[in-house]
Amino acid sequence: MPSNLFLQNTLELDALLAGSRALVEVELNSLLPSSATEPEKIHQAIRWSVFAGGKRFRPALLLAVGQAFSAPIKNLLKTAAAFEMVHTYSLIHDDLPAMDDDDLRRGRPTCHVRFDEATAILAGDALQTLAFQAIAQDPELSPETRIALISELTRAAGTPEGMVAGQAFDMEAETRQVNGAQLEEIHRLKTGALIVSAARCGAIIGGASKDELAAVTSYGSHLGLLFQITDDFLDVTATAEALGKTPGKDARSNKATYPSLHGMEETRAAAIDAHHAACDALQQLDRPTDVLRRIADFILNRTG
Amino acid sequence: MPSNLFLQNTLELDALLAGSRALVEVELNSLLPSSATEPEKIHQAIRWSVFAGGKRFRPALLLAVGQAFSAPIKNLLKTAAAFEMVHTYSLIHDDLPAMDDDDLRRGRPTCHVRFDEATAILAGDALQTLAFQAIAQDPELSPETRIALISELTRAAGTPEGMVAGQAFDMEAETRQVNGAQLEEIHRLKTGALIVSAARCGAIIGGASKDELAAVTSYGSHLGLLFQITDDFLDVTATAEALGKTPGKDARSNKATYPSLHGMEETRAAAIDAHHAACDALQQLDRPTDVLRRIADFILNRTG
Repeated sequence: MPSNLFLQNTLELDALLAGSRALVEVELNSLLPSSATEPEKIHQAIRWSVFAGGKRFRPALLLAVGQAFSAPIKNLLKTAAAFEMVHTYSLIHDDLPAMDDDDLRRGRPTCHVRFDEATAILAGDALQTLAFQAIAQDPELSPETRIALISELTRAAGTPEGMVAGQAFDMEAETRQVNGAQLEEIHRLKTGALIVSAARCGAIIGGASKDELAAVTSYGSHLGLLFQITDDFLDVTATAEALGKTPGKDARSNKATYPSLHGMEETRAAAIDAHHAACDALQQLDRPTDVLRRIADFILNRTG
Repeated sequence: MPSNLFLQNTLELDALLAGSRALVEVELNSLLPSSATEPEKIHQAIRWSVFAGGKRFRPALLLAVGQAFSAPIKNLLKTAAAFEMVHTYSLIHDDLPAMDDDDLRRGRPTCHVRFDEATAILAGDALQTLAFQAIAQDPELSPETRIALISELTRAAGTPEGMVAGQAFDMEAETRQVNGAQLEEIHRLKTGALIVSAARCGAIIGGASKDELAAVTSYGSHLGLLFQITDDFLDVTATAEALGKTPGKDARSNKATYPSLHGMEETRAAAIDAHHAACDALQQLDRPTDVLRRIADFILNRTG
């Protein structure tokens, strides 16, 4: 990725992301059962994985979009936390021996390594349930809004239009050749769907019009693609320390990635295209979208 | 269990259960992605496990309670199907090698045996998502009711008050001695929570008053206990054919059960007590509860 192009903005955004991360972590802490709640092991496992120092990108995006639509932050936090719970449940299950068989996540042992496989399966299951509970029981939002959000999140997290479908396609792809269009579809579902949905949920809570929601959807889609392209890119270029997981894993597992299909130069160009498209979508909004643009810059320039 | 005490009623109830099973299966069929939907394998796995000839007890209970409160059946069916999806997701995950490691369920290969472990994990995950989606998108119910139902189902399915907590306790119990009170708590969470909740959701859709909901909760709690006691009992007495799974498994895995802790005679007495308590709770309802009483009879006398 081009480095330092947006350094000034990135530094400002760092502070903003740190602020939303702190808020989301307070919310997660209050929504999740304590480690001392019986049965203790599963609650310890849930907290082990949720509080592993993730970037909280999806919640940050939801908060940023919501605030662009003037939603009060207290109306956004439970849904933002719910997205992080769904994201974390998917990481716990993806890391299982029967799936990607990863020992390291966010720089420390994965849930099934630290605890055991059965506990990791249940912790993921429970996190999904807790995510829907957080939205269903949010007193700041009308029942209509809560239903719209839950419906949105189920589509993005499930199958055939969401994350689980993407994971299923991805597993199939490990055993056969995929082309560029198929790779993009896997990414769109596996990573993109939840990112788009986080952006959309911010807009829904903010009372976006239909046209505004379409622009946010376009922004989120291109941002999701950008996120995955840079993820693949970093798997080739980054260090384990910056990444918090084992780099080079994709290549060793013969997994199709942007670099493996298109080479590094074309991957870099695709990232810049996705960044432009995301920013173009923001032009359609008569809202303060500066932070959203800087989030796109941040993803383009990320190093971990 | 005493046999033939309620034979006449049981035969009538059989027809009623068959009717509600057929309705629920039509609903499940319309809610679940078709086997031909890509990615095909996960949708085939979902349908393999959902359409494996289950008794559909939770949906039947929800329909029966809802109808006792004069709810139109079309208002009950999506929530009833959602309960069966959550129940099936829990069976798929419980059967995994890292959990109970079962090869046979409802008389045929379990999901991970027929497909593979990764697909079984994802199929369970997706079924949970689809369950909440079915309720969130039910056009027959007000947003307020849908939110009440989703909130109810998350509590019953999750942790620390629901099914996943029960499963976590149950796993712990395999490695140490449990006493009668602990065994009852495991049952209350692992099996009872979803059964009580199915009864409660029928009453919620039917617009039950607070007192009525309390009576339904009492009925459902005792029915759930009865269900688990008879389950343990059948694990000792039934044949594999009647049971659709390998009997005697609990004893071989040193799992605490009613018969292993209390002996067969006391287990029989506990079942009759739970049946009486369930029927007593129905006395508090000024509603047509004949079918609900016969469901309790049916569970007391079941042979598979």
